[in-house]
Order: sequence, then structure tokens, then C-alpha cells
Amino acid sequence: MTRKPVVGVMGGAEVGAEVCALARELGKRIAERGWVLLNGGRDAGVMRASAAGAHEAGGTVIGILPDADTSRAAPDLDYAIVTGMGDARNLINVLSSDVVIACPGGAGTLSEVALALKNGKHVILLGWDAGNAFTAFRQSGLLTMVHTAAEAIEEVSASVETRGLHQPE
Amino acid sequence: MTRKPVVGVMGGAEVGAEVCALARELGKRIAERGWVLLNGGRDAGVMRASAAGAHEAGGTVIGILPDADTSRAAPDLDYAIVTGMGDARNLINVLSSDVVIACPGGAGTLSEVALALKNGKHVILLGWDAGNAFTAFRQSGLLTMVHTAAEAIEEVSASVETRGLHQPE
Amino acid sequence: MTRKPVVGVMGGAEVGAEVCALARELGKRIAERGWVLLNGGRDAGVMRASAAGAHEAGGTVIGILPDADTSRAAPDLDYAIVTGMGDARNLINVLSSDVVIACPGGAGTLSEVALALKNGKHVILLGWDAGNAFTAFRQSGLLTMVHTAAEAIEEVSASVETRGLHQPE
Amino acid sequence: MTRKPVVGVMGGAEVGAEVCALARELGKRIAERGWVLLNGGRDAGVMRASAAGAHEAGGTVIGILPDADTSRAAPDLDYAIVTGMGDARNLINVLSSDVVIACPGGAGTLSEVALALKNGKHVILLGWDAGNAFTAFRQSGLLTMVHTAAEAIEEVSASVETRGLHQPE
Repeated sequence: MTRKPVVGVMGGAEVGAEVCALARELGKRIAERGWVLLNGGRDAGVMRASAAGAHEAGGTVIGILPDADTSRAAPDLDYAIVTGMGDARNLINVLSSDVVIACPGGAGTLSEVALALKNGKHVILLGWDAGNAFTAFRQSGLLTMVHTAAEAIEEVSASVETRGLHQPE
Repeated sequence: MTRKPVVGVMGGAEVGAEVCALARELGKRIAERGWVLLNGGRDAGVMRASAAGAHEAGGTVIGILPDADTSRAAPDLDYAIVTGMGDARNLINVLSSDVVIACPGGAGTLSEVALALKNGKHVILLGWDAGNAFTAFRQSGLLTMVHTAAEAIEEVSASVETRGLHQPE
Repeated sequence: MTRKPVVGVMGGAEVGAEVCALARELGKRIAERGWVLLNGGRDAGVMRASAAGAHEAGGTVIGILPDADTSRAAPDLDYAIVTGMGDARNLINVLSSDVVIACPGGAGTLSEVALALKNGKHVILLGWDAGNAFTAFRQSGLLTMVHTAAEAIEEVSASVETRGLHQPE
Repeated sequence: MTRKPVVGVMGGAEVGAEVCALARELGKRIAERGWVLLNGGRDAGVMRASAAGAHEAGGTVIGILPDADTSRAAPDLDYAIVTGMGDARNLINVLSSDVVIACPGGAGTLSEVALALKNGKHVILLGWDAGNAFTAFRQSGLLTMVHTAAEAIEEVSASVETRGLHQPE
């Protein structure tokens, strides 16, 4: 059996309506490609919006919760992984993803971008710039930047093909 | 949206053919009920066998891997959660499960039984006895013992109903 | 530089006065030998009592906290390690110890005994019996049982010598 | 009892001689102030150099290891905390520090800067600039930049006084 590609969607818990709309569109497009959406699982910001978008389009959503129970889980998760490990779950978010898309967020999102790159994951920044601290990764191609959800999907698609992951038919 | 009940299946990586057959039957029965099977994800012992049984019956299997990649994952996982945290993932196994069934195993399985009980999870021992160190939990009803996979399923069913979890139709 | 032997002291947060007195004596004896005492760090039960005993005798105490800050730390810690990982820190407790002494406790303590044995650590049960689930480890000698703090210290001493750890002069 | 201030020193495992010299000087100065130095514990780069500097000056060094044993520990650690959790230990590094100094490094160091800021820790960048992704933290004063070890020590000193941590006499 071959598992479906897993696309990690990171981003802030406290973001504006525009970022939430972007995350929702992204979730929808990930689901339409038949990929699994994985995020941090909470009922807030990019987590809630991306889960909702994927769910509406009939996709599958896995949430990796920092809490020790599901009381703060987003309503649209198909599967809730309960870690009880706080921010240490950020590592699990990126290790469990074949490719990571980072929407705008705060220090938590930056930690996920850094942990993903450290572990050799392709990271796609959607609608923001992580700045010159990450220049080496931009140059190596492990970190890419796009402006729209559609472009992010194209990046994931290329990444999935390049790295030989299974594309669901 | 209501998530399906998640049944954690714990047990040894190095067990005999009889225990593997039991785990496989258990996986099959969990899938037939429409529950999600969650285990430690590796390609060995109770993990591999229970995943195979659930997969054959058309069920869904989530594996929580101790490793930092999927190179040692069981072939029948639908979703691989990559923790990179070694035995610390044992906590995630039980926190992510609504009910835990423990097949025979070694010290790793005992740690999962203990961590599950500490976190108030109903634990069902299938085919073995955790002994007098766990007597208080036997008396409170949080720990129960059964001899067959069919009995374990009945225990899970009662537990799911009692605790108000959603039963998929 | 050779690090001092580290003796992990596990045991319940909710235990009676007798167990606390035992833990306090144990802490005192560990400090008198020049060993470092490591425990779960919280201001309760065996953690608080063993730290107090070691501190009174001029020893060094490291506490591995499950919390994300030190607000619940025992007053007698020299060094507080803040994990923010809840019960997942139980693994760190035992991996960081050269030898583990387990005083009476509940499911948390049982999880530490199991995780220690899984990782090949010598575990000494002080004043209780983990029961028949752990018989194989009793037979291999990895798990031993004693009734007094003095006996536990003798076990640690033998273990430290056998395994070639440095004994502070 | 009041614990001594703990200064976390982060930075790359693969850095040049100049950065190692800087880390060594930093370790020495931290020890001279009577503070505890905490780092990632491995025998490489900033970890090894800062531990050596502190040790030479008679200070105390705690290393938080990602590994499940001490085989890769720096020689100058007084206390080795063995997590077995890989990069998830980066969170423990910063949560256990009262103030964090980040020497130059790669994505791992960036993850520690981000996790520290997310958890409200004062972060001092020594000899490098994390760039515009962290501008908001620069403006709030939680993130500061310095060019020399002496300046970093002054920043820590001010931070320790402001936040009311105990200064060893």
C-alpha cells in the first residue's frame, strides 16, 4: 500500500480574515488534489481555516494537538493526534509532512519553518518572506516563496513528483 | 463533524505467531466496527499484524512512529505520524486513543498501559495479566481483562457507548 | 572530566507520610555518597521529600519538570529542567539516570519503571513489589527489590561499580 | 533556596573557529558571573566550545542531549540530561533557560530562537542578525542584538535584574 502525500499547513493561530481566507482556499485545493492535509489541530486561525477548507472539499485532515485532550481541537479534523507535549509537537507537524506550506504567523510558525528545513523538508512560504536569516535555504531551493494558493499547489505538485511520492489517481 | 472512535492497539514488537494472529484478528474486528485503529506504527509484531488485519477488512490505520522518518513503518498504515521522539511517542499512542487494548508485550507495552491509566483511559488487557501492581485499577474498572479478540471488541463497544463517543453507523 | 553518578528517584506525588520519610532518608543517603539526585521536580510527595533530604545533606538535586515553567517546582532543586512535555518527561527522568530507585507511587511511577527497564536501566524497587508483570526483569537481575533506603544505596553502589561509573572520592 | 540564573547558549554544531572562540569566551564570562550555562550538550561546535569555556572558569554546565545516551556528549558537561527526543529537545533548551544567547548557527539555532520568543524568553543574538522575520520581537525588546561576548553578558545582567532573578553573590 502506498500512503497519500501529506501536506503540512502551518501558520498563526491569531491571524486576520485575509490570511484565514487564504488558508481555507489552500485547504480546499489540497483536498481537490487528493492529498492529506496535516496541521496543528487547534480551533483557531490557519489551523481551523485550512481544516475547514479541506473538509468542505471532501478531503482528509489530521491535526497534531499540543494539548493532552481534544477539547481545543478544530471541528473539521478527521483524525486528532493528542500529544500533550505543547510546542514540542511542532517537530511532529513537520516530520509527518512530505512538504510544508507556511502561511503567515508568528514565532511558532517560524519554529516550524526552521525545524522543517533542519530536517530536509521542502518549505513553501505562502504570502510572506522569512527574511535573510533563511537565505541559504532559498539559494539551495529547499525554501521557496509563492504569493497565491494556486502557486503553492503547483510547488507541492512539483515537489511530490521530484521526490517520488505517490500521487493518488 | 464527529470523529470516529479511535482504538489504540499496543503490544510487543517481538512476539510469537500466536500473538500476531490474535493482533491480526483484533485489527480485522476493529475495522469491521468502523473504528480507527491506532498503533506504534512499526513493521514488527503486534504493530504490523494489527495494521494488516485492519487493512484487509477495509479499515483505517494510524501509526505513531518513534523514528524521525518512515523507513521502518508497517506497510499497512494509512497515515504515518513521524515523531522522532523514541519511546516518548508511547504517551502519544495512548493520549490519541479513546480506548486502549494491550496485547502481550514487554516493558514498552507496560509503559503504555501505565501511561494510559495515569491519563484516565480505559485499558483492556487481551490475553495476559499485568499483575498485582495494577490491582487498584482493576478494582476501579479502568483496567479490564479479556481472553479473546471478540471479548475485547465487546469491552470497547461498551466503553464507547458509556463515554458517549460517536459510533459510526 | 567525569560526571558524577546520577541516581533517579521516582515515586508518587500523592503518598503518605511514611513514604515521604523514606524518600527523604533516601535523598540524604544519596547526597552523602556524593551522587546527584534526579527526580520529577514537582513540589509534592516523593519528589519534594527526596529533594529536601538531599539538599539538607549538601547534595545536588536536578528536577525534570513536566510543566512549561517552574511555578510548581520543589523548593530544594539546584537545577530545574523545564520540559513542557507533561508525562513525556518520564522518559527523560529515566534516560538521564544511571540507576533508578522507585519508591511507592501510582501509574506514573509504573510507567517510569517500565521505560527504565525498556532502556536497559537497573531499577531498584524500594518498599514495594511491581508484581508478576515484571518477573522476567527480576529474573535477569535488571530489576531488584529492597526494603530500606540503606539497602537501596548498597544496590546503587554495586551497580555503579559494576557498570564502571565514576565514584566521587 | 534560590536557584542560580540559567543562561542558555545556542548555536551551530558546524561552525568555524571564530564562532567557536566566541562561544568559548562567552562560556568563560558566564561562569565568571556565577551563572549556570545550559546548552544542547553535544561534542561539537558552539556546544562543545561554550561548555569548555565555562568549565575552564570553574562554572557549571548542563547539556540537554537529543540522543538516548551520552555517547555524543561534550566532555565538559557537569550534568547531562538525556532526552532521546531529537530536535524536540530544542524546546527544553529554551524553556529551561532564564535568558537565551544565540551564537551563529543554522536552522536548529533558528528554531531555538523562535521557540524561545514564542515562550516569552529574552533572546540575545550574538554576532548575527535573524533578519526581518523577527522585526516585531526586535521592536518589543524581547529580541536584542550584540556584537561581543562582553555585551551579551551586560544584556543578560540587565535582564536578570529586570526580571528579578537571583544574582549569586
